[in-house]
Amino acid sequence: MAKQAQIGVTGLAVMGRNLARNLARHGYTVAVHNRNTQRVEDLVEQFGDEGDFVPARKPEDFVASLERPRRLVIMVKAGDPTDAVIDQFAPLLDEGDMIVDGGNAHFEDTRRREKALRKRGLHFVGTGISGGEEGALNGPSIMPGGSTEAYESLGPLLEDIAASVDGRPCCTHLGQDGAGHFVKMVHNGIEYADMQLIAESYDLLRRALGMEPAAIAEVFRTWNEGRLESYLIEITAEVLAHTDAHTGRPFVDVVLDQAEQKGTGRWTVQTALDLGVPVSGIAEAVFARSLSGHADLREAGQDLPGPSGTLSGAEADRFADDVEQALYASKIVAYAQGVHQIQAGSEAYGWNIDPGAVAAIWRGGCIIRARFLNRITESYEGGHAPASLLTAPYFRDAIGDAQDAWRRVVATAARLGVPTPGFSAALSYYDALRSRRLPAGLIQGQRDYFGAHTYRRTDTDGTFHTLWGADRTETES
Amino acid sequence: MAKQAQIGVTGLAVMGRNLARNLARHGYTVAVHNRNTQRVEDLVEQFGDEGDFVPARKPEDFVASLERPRRLVIMVKAGDPTDAVIDQFAPLLDEGDMIVDGGNAHFEDTRRREKALRKRGLHFVGTGISGGEEGALNGPSIMPGGSTEAYESLGPLLEDIAASVDGRPCCTHLGQDGAGHFVKMVHNGIEYADMQLIAESYDLLRRALGMEPAAIAEVFRTWNEGRLESYLIEITAEVLAHTDAHTGRPFVDVVLDQAEQKGTGRWTVQTALDLGVPVSGIAEAVFARSLSGHADLREAGQDLPGPSGTLSGAEADRFADDVEQALYASKIVAYAQGVHQIQAGSEAYGWNIDPGAVAAIWRGGCIIRARFLNRITESYEGGHAPASLLTAPYFRDAIGDAQDAWRRVVATAARLGVPTPGFSAALSYYDALRSRRLPAGLIQGQRDYFGAHTYRRTDTDGTFHTLWGADRTETES
Repeated sequence: MAKQAQIGVTGLAVMGRNLARNLARHGYTVAVHNRNTQRVEDLVEQFGDEGDFVPARKPEDFVASLERPRRLVIMVKAGDPTDAVIDQFAPLLDEGDMIVDGGNAHFEDTRRREKALRKRGLHFVGTGISGGEEGALNGPSIMPGGSTEAYESLGPLLEDIAASVDGRPCCTHLGQDGAGHFVKMVHNGIEYADMQLIAESYDLLRRALGMEPAAIAEVFRTWNEGRLESYLIEITAEVLAHTDAHTGRPFVDVVLDQAEQKGTGRWTVQTALDLGVPVSGIAEAVFARSLSGHADLREAGQDLPGPSGTLSGAEADRFADDVEQALYASKIVAYAQGVHQIQAGSEAYGWNIDPGAVAAIWRGGCIIRARFLNRITESYEGGHAPASLLTAPYFRDAIGDAQDAWRRVVATAARLGVPTPGFSAALSYYDALRSRRLPAGLIQGQRDYFGAHTYRRTDTDGTFHTLWGADRTETES
Repeated sequence: MAKQAQIGVTGLAVMGRNLARNLARHGYTVAVHNRNTQRVEDLVEQFGDEGDFVPARKPEDFVASLERPRRLVIMVKAGDPTDAVIDQFAPLLDEGDMIVDGGNAHFEDTRRREKALRKRGLHFVGTGISGGEEGALNGPSIMPGGSTEAYESLGPLLEDIAASVDGRPCCTHLGQDGAGHFVKMVHNGIEYADMQLIAESYDLLRRALGMEPAAIAEVFRTWNEGRLESYLIEITAEVLAHTDAHTGRPFVDVVLDQAEQKGTGRWTVQTALDLGVPVSGIAEAVFARSLSGHADLREAGQDLPGPSGTLSGAEADRFADDVEQALYASKIVAYAQGVHQIQAGSEAYGWNIDPGAVAAIWRGGCIIRARFLNRITESYEGGHAPASLLTAPYFRDAIGDAQDAWRRVVATAARLGVPTPGFSAALSYYDALRSRRLPAGLIQGQRDYFGAHTYRRTDTDGTFHTLWGADRTETES
């Protein structure tokens, strides 16, 4: 009998291949399978010396090569392809076997699949994996859901191959069924917001100060030595410093400025709306991408009147520092909204997710890895559970210090005509949260006026309606 | 044989009852039915002298009382109750009969139902009806979808009972299957945005100028005599002027400031995300309502630091006028986003909707009825189809005139700490649309760096990837 593999990976596109290599490099015997068998052969030929691979041409061979209970990782496209692969393998498995879906599935699909497979005695472990190709190979951030029993078996392997920060693996069991894919979705939503805020910062430095990309790259390099230290700030400096070889122009100027998306940002906002969680920073990031892609609309918009011009004097001197503070404050708000969504999802689906643990596994391996995440983890340590990330002492103080600059930046952008949807949405969210009264009272009054939708009162319980069309007395309903 | 009814209404809660009365008052013989037959008796007893009603206790009697082809209007709750009523009546109908759904159905449900009933030879006409109880009785804005054939039969009745402006009925056939409910959904999304912008205007006058609600009511009354003339501005003045009889305080101050929603605003944003249409103004309105309802979060937010204080001197003197201009400009943006969504939906689903005709039927009967809508209709007359409402000459000039004030208001709000998510989102959208370059180019560069997502170039066709981890040459993919 051939050597039994401890884990198997089917779907050997770049993410699956790199994940298999990562496992093999960590000493695991890895069964590998792909519908098109050429990829199996390529993997063994190119990387066979990295560890123990058990190549399989047929699904039956693949399944037979796994030790029991079987651990089978599928790395195929989200959606129908995932269902197809599950339908192919599930009949070949035995009770207690585990299927790990490492793709970018919608958490509702994961919930559906987990439920269906549980009925058949199988564990289905929807697992978010962030870090792209490079992360999959050298240590991603891993966000598994699924049953506790499955995690007991899978956890040691996943924690082994995950990134590690301060000796702590960037992998933890997040909760039952779709918890992992839910957290991965919000991670991506936050990534959208993070990137949009960085883009606005760059745009402001360029348009309000007239700086060139290479000079702005230096600003980002400096920021990356401080509290904003993060992978995204680091690569922003790299991208901005890059010169296009064909034209000799800044690379960022020859890239078509129409941002694309893969759907998880959109899912984050749509899910937040279902959960009643305001995620304006993430939404503005998604909208900014979609607006950028409407070439015809933008072409027509070139004639619209508006200001231009740059800052000068003392305003100009302090502006880069102001933008750093606005970026930091806005970033805190975006993360606060994302954490709120995770808490709301956790409550709605009974996942019992610890936001501090989520921040801890995001510190390495993934796109939004950042020094900043330590502060989030600390905010939830020792049983602390602030109502919002914004009200945790560290962040409250940080925004307290940053807010004058933040307000100046939003005001300056409005005056100069530079769009700052992310900065502005974040500031409005912050100011709404701290408002003693919101004009929502007027909205309730309007709704009662035109639709008899009723309202509650501040001074007594009950539901009331004013007879607007008659003598305007109040009735209790 | 009893008198045959030209149309029947089942579901006699307030909207259905009022619609039936509206039809009867216009001389139609109206069959009326309700699951709980008491409502049928109440209607005939209370309003039987308004016209010809044919009361029916049983579904079979109701169907038998209708002339052929039958016109049957269902006025029940959206969702499962609608399906239940369809399932109850469809088997009793004959080929060519029409079911009108006048509830607030999701347009995807309407598409599903239309398709299923079409296979059975029945017409299903999803119809948006706006105007609340009062509109249903005295003339609503009616937004029917469904087949052209069904509209030929139903149109004369619906146009008869709709509101009318300048001799033109506020009802037109919008397109096949779900077109009517889609347009109604976007109408409600725009209504959310409109109300949010009014609420921000009120909040700014209150907090930046220290005005009392009664004084602000006067400002709104003045505005209602100008270009902002609309039902929502009118009732805002009424609500703000109202004094609570129990406390002697302004009514708006005793209403609990937690705004509620019924789902159509949320649907608008979720659908816009699917269609790739940026509707930031509508999204911020939905988020503002949901944030207002998070009492625990807001309670915790009371400690957050931030500015307060009011304006004085020349800034204060011009501020109310500035807010009027900001409101007008932001409103134009919200409508531009809604019109964009209608156009995108029309394209995606093949409805061929004329935005000018939509604006025309919104001029009366519905909650967002406004003088302003004439300008939209005019912008699309004579074969004109501006890429965006913002680029139509009237609106481009209006924003051109208003924008200095608009920018001052957003800047002032940021400085004083008053949340203006709607005003700010609208301004950022406007400034993004007119930007020659957007920082989306940087986002594409980041995506290519961390995920090899590729990018396009401004100077040549094709899809490219830079080898960031190697020598940074560019490859074509």
